[in-house]
Amino acid sequence: MPAISKKGQLMPQSPIRKLVPFAEEATKNGKTIYYLNIGQPDIKTPQIALDAVKVHSLEVLAYTRSEGSEEYRRKIANYYSDKDIEVNHDDIIVTTGGSEALLFAFGSIMDVDDEIIIPEPFYANYNGFSTSSGINVVPVISKIEDNFALPAIEEFEKLITPKTKAILICNPGNPTGYLYSKEEIKKLATIVKKHDLFLIADEVYREFTYDGNTHYSIMQEEGLENHAIMIDSVSKRYSMCGARIGCLVSKNKDVIQTALKFAQARLSPPTLAQIASEAALGTPQSYFDDVIEEYVERRNVLIEELQKIEGVQVATPKGAFYCIAQLPVKNSDAFAQWLLENFDVNGETVMVAPAAGFYSTPGVGLNQIRIAYVLKKESLIKAVHIIKEALKVYKD
Amino acid sequence: MPAISKKGQLMPQSPIRKLVPFAEEATKNGKTIYYLNIGQPDIKTPQIALDAVKVHSLEVLAYTRSEGSEEYRRKIANYYSDKDIEVNHDDIIVTTGGSEALLFAFGSIMDVDDEIIIPEPFYANYNGFSTSSGINVVPVISKIEDNFALPAIEEFEKLITPKTKAILICNPGNPTGYLYSKEEIKKLATIVKKHDLFLIADEVYREFTYDGNTHYSIMQEEGLENHAIMIDSVSKRYSMCGARIGCLVSKNKDVIQTALKFAQARLSPPTLAQIASEAALGTPQSYFDDVIEEYVERRNVLIEELQKIEGVQVATPKGAFYCIAQLPVKNSDAFAQWLLENFDVNGETVMVAPAAGFYSTPGVGLNQIRIAYVLKKESLIKAVHIIKEALKVYKD
Repeated sequence: MPAISKKGQLMPQSPIRKLVPFAEEATKNGKTIYYLNIGQPDIKTPQIALDAVKVHSLEVLAYTRSEGSEEYRRKIANYYSDKDIEVNHDDIIVTTGGSEALLFAFGSIMDVDDEIIIPEPFYANYNGFSTSSGINVVPVISKIEDNFALPAIEEFEKLITPKTKAILICNPGNPTGYLYSKEEIKKLATIVKKHDLFLIADEVYREFTYDGNTHYSIMQEEGLENHAIMIDSVSKRYSMCGARIGCLVSKNKDVIQTALKFAQARLSPPTLAQIASEAALGTPQSYFDDVIEEYVERRNVLIEELQKIEGVQVATPKGAFYCIAQLPVKNSDAFAQWLLENFDVNGETVMVAPAAGFYSTPGVGLNQIRIAYVLKKESLIKAVHIIKEALKVYKD
Repeated sequence: MPAISKKGQLMPQSPIRKLVPFAEEATKNGKTIYYLNIGQPDIKTPQIALDAVKVHSLEVLAYTRSEGSEEYRRKIANYYSDKDIEVNHDDIIVTTGGSEALLFAFGSIMDVDDEIIIPEPFYANYNGFSTSSGINVVPVISKIEDNFALPAIEEFEKLITPKTKAILICNPGNPTGYLYSKEEIKKLATIVKKHDLFLIADEVYREFTYDGNTHYSIMQEEGLENHAIMIDSVSKRYSMCGARIGCLVSKNKDVIQTALKFAQARLSPPTLAQIASEAALGTPQSYFDDVIEEYVERRNVLIEELQKIEGVQVATPKGAFYCIAQLPVKNSDAFAQWLLENFDVNGETVMVAPAAGFYSTPGVGLNQIRIAYVLKKESLIKAVHIIKEALKVYKD
């Protein structure tokens, strides 16, 4: 029997997926589960986007251009212009989700054994994309005690080697909810220019910033044109994760031309989802105002309730819809599984993502979990209550 | 300015895309172009598939399971059963087009510098996927004089090294239209079992077989369970190339479990397109009967007209909707560009795919083109007439 690849053996299992079998078992046993493990919001997709695929008059569901239709890319450029991000439609390649944009970016700028520095904890699938691209993640640790602020420049510089090709940030951050300040972006700009690196920013949560804080994009930073690669997606912005439409944006023509070759090999991003995504650009600001108000309330309730639990430490997120909570347990992986298998309050339990999968440094984050506040307030209150009760009886 | 990757530099440009700028220029200059370069059929998508996305009642366009919904996979398994291919729903991973299924297969079974043997000429994007996966294509040459039949077993065995991990075929073949016989599949089975290799078959043109020939899948071959990986797609079957839904099928559990990790990293295949693809499975046989009748007529007309041109050699395809034609020119790349830029008959010209991009052996196929017979008969007749007139005046 022929063997699978070393790469395939090394591919990490997603921390938000590996508990799924236990959840399915728990559901079969009649338990109700509050799913706080996955960034799949319950927020409705804008009707304008859903309607667009209902009224089309396509007779042949054909390929689009590999880089996405010109009309859609022009509209995306207009959307960015409204956010004070000035790019042209030919600085944009439409991709199958932000996931594919990351894969194209990695493939365009890195070869096997090259290194990418990522502040950790970071979005777990960065590990998967790095493994499948054969590159190495070099983590720079950000701490819950500092609210996950950007580590000092010296911490980055200590890690730079001849193999370092890029720094990757997620802003606002998944799983931390941390929003980088303009000053922090400028610090990163200084490092990448000094060491001739790329700066990749995953900005898919751009709209979700709270408490009067505004998002500062790497694309707004002057002098960074040849270094900056922005990753974007419609998934979270319009609560249409299932569309699988994102884009890669860069002023660096070599990057765009190279990414286009990867795009051409896979022919086309999904056509129906592009129709929905193009229509979604017409979503009124009131939709976002309502959604952000909802997320702020959810966050406030969640953090307030978590802080009431003895031994729980939590950083207040300024953006996105995640937070990292540190629990008085030794192994949150075992705790999360135990919650599904062996615990309930009146037949209800909670599914959370153990945070270890968001770190690449072994042994770090073992007592942390990621909570996605993608459920209604009442559900969040119940879910945190369940965690509180669980911690009273749980023994590592 | 930071440099792009070596891999990015090595990524081949698609032979069906690189003439696009010349075509756009020609169209601007008022020329009408018959597009024979790309496998985008003009055949209508089944109404049942298009309607499915019009009547859905989704409020949130959410992720599906990474491997595709269980319901859809069960229906796919039923479809295969009708084709005498017996697989279970959990032998199937739904992918974003056949393209992603190939990438998952390559990633699951091969590491950097591993080798895959492919009869050439082959689907050009196999080169792109190999480059992006860091693996090496080892071509085994099939010849137009032999109608592109499977090369002898000894030809394969000469090429097998410790780095060889798989043999890849496209059946029926793009760009040759060649349909492998049951005996040829059995020969391949013998080789992969003897040398403990995987056999990957891209069977996306399964429905399109002509002249009473039937398709024999690698999944039907007993004893090949741990070796066989089938690649499939809805793109050609239902003329819905823009859906971007395919699948990877294998009875080898290690392969499926490994491919699933790649699938989980990119979260989900496109949801709307899965709805359309699931509905497409209800397409009546009469649709295929009509489509196949249409393709046979197109093929007959195309081959007949091509054979009338002096100096043109063409193999008669038994499946799919492509053929390779050998022309009395030295460099079909230059000829194809010249057709777009400098030639027309009454304001009309033709776009073809130079065949060199379908070979990985340098210097082979330079005098060949691939023609996709995806247009109506009258258009094919006009297109071949244009090629005939062009060859009278063209000078290398």
